[in-house]
Amino acid sequence: MKTRRSERLVDMTNYLENRPYQLVPLTFFARRYQSAKSSISEDITIIKHVFLKQGIGLIETIPGAGGGVLFTPGINRQMATEFLQQLQQKLTDPQRILPGGYLYLSDVIGDPQILRQIGQLIATQYAKQPIDAIMTMATKGIPIAQSVAYYLNVPYVIVRRESKVTEGPTLSVNYDSGSISRVEKMELSKRSLPLHSRVIAIDDFMKGGGTVSGLRNLVHEFESELLGVTVLVESGKLVSAKKDQTVSLLQLDSLDVETKSLTMSTGSYLDQVDFTPFELNR
Amino acid sequence: MKTRRSERLVDMTNYLENRPYQLVPLTFFARRYQSAKSSISEDITIIKHVFLKQGIGLIETIPGAGGGVLFTPGINRQMATEFLQQLQQKLTDPQRILPGGYLYLSDVIGDPQILRQIGQLIATQYAKQPIDAIMTMATKGIPIAQSVAYYLNVPYVIVRRESKVTEGPTLSVNYDSGSISRVEKMELSKRSLPLHSRVIAIDDFMKGGGTVSGLRNLVHEFESELLGVTVLVESGKLVSAKKDQTVSLLQLDSLDVETKSLTMSTGSYLDQVDFTPFELNR
Repeated sequence: MKTRRSERLVDMTNYLENRPYQLVPLTFFARRYQSAKSSISEDITIIKHVFLKQGIGLIETIPGAGGGVLFTPGINRQMATEFLQQLQQKLTDPQRILPGGYLYLSDVIGDPQILRQIGQLIATQYAKQPIDAIMTMATKGIPIAQSVAYYLNVPYVIVRRESKVTEGPTLSVNYDSGSISRVEKMELSKRSLPLHSRVIAIDDFMKGGGTVSGLRNLVHEFESELLGVTVLVESGKLVSAKKDQTVSLLQLDSLDVETKSLTMSTGSYLDQVDFTPFELNR
Repeated sequence: MKTRRSERLVDMTNYLENRPYQLVPLTFFARRYQSAKSSISEDITIIKHVFLKQGIGLIETIPGAGGGVLFTPGINRQMATEFLQQLQQKLTDPQRILPGGYLYLSDVIGDPQILRQIGQLIATQYAKQPIDAIMTMATKGIPIAQSVAYYLNVPYVIVRRESKVTEGPTLSVNYDSGSISRVEKMELSKRSLPLHSRVIAIDDFMKGGGTVSGLRNLVHEFESELLGVTVLVESGKLVSAKKDQTVSLLQLDSLDVETKSLTMSTGSYLDQVDFTPFELNR
């Protein structure tokens, strides 16, 4: 039975949102709804407009035999700015200061709504880049990497500090952890990342560039390429961080454990990201 | 300007799907679209039908002054059965056998599409239960817990085996890990879980019930209540597991490291879950 436009729009919205970066042939929808391709095309036009207007992402129609509809999640500059301001406000809280100059972030990376926003921000940064995998450091990088993976529709792999018996053979590198013990080891299961992968790295907090250069070395061990690094919070005092061309959502400008005070600003994200494809009036 | 029904349907579908378990007043939508509440109600009826038909979840309209629209994610029995069969097929692969009788699961828990399905399955099991937090064991439980958290819209907390300096004060318990060293320690940051929380526990693999009874003890240390435990794969040979009333999606019936063979079946999930609210023809 032919499906009415109203029902088609609800179902297509759900279908496309749950399948980012997957080309869906128009004929698939035409069969699914027993409707003409011309009707489906009109549906797509409506969805496309709303998705841009509401900052959900870009809907494109790729013509030709191998074509179809493609959903690329991404938000516009205004939404990104608002997300970052909310996040900055939430994190600029002296109660978050932990010994050693760290920030308590567990509530943030355990909150599904905030994770959705962080995932949308970082997915916008890497929109349309040819990424094969997202790499992250256990354990607090995992939630952020997973959220990005949802929006980019690529798998993510977890780099560990300790050896796990349940993973099979691993490749490992040493790195300067910045902590007291300094040189530590990070490792990744051999079967979890194919050789010659294009990888991005995601982490929650960067203090010094030791972890990032460790990840870079590990990617090289897999004969793979590191396309970019994005962290939620970057500790702003360190020059080595810039060298690695890491993009940060937020920057920790100062933190004083004694006086329990901290200041934060937005990181390099807004300057580095091209929002053009996701703006309604471009 | 008044928004047309077609645009409203696309936006409301996205809006509700991204806000499970959040009551949205009809007046919010009426203002957002400059439309009459009667029109919004008609929109809701359409969305409700499609959401049930496609196994997305339940849309309810709560009447009265404090009322509104509520989206409860959940799938029907047929979809659940299909998901589990696909998962069983993917996991019943001798290549996954690791020393010690473990299963290689990293690719599964790093795949965003599979994680969505696992999250939908477990969220259906706990639909409408008064849950305050999801608890999981680092590191491989995290992706599953996060996906469930997305659909249930509750925060999740990560229990660790090792002490982390960046978390602040912790509570810890000892547990029988089932591995060579036997008694290990698990701990959770004090500020990450409020006292008197209602908690569910999620993990990837259960072999013996040591981890589960550890989690149970840890929950008690927080004067909280463990409402349920769900694991992706349960090693089926152990009777102690049943005692803990753990629900498993899949059951590992046999695994032989020497002959590289394994057999799996679906776990207790399908028998334990009430799909009635999510069936189109109930």
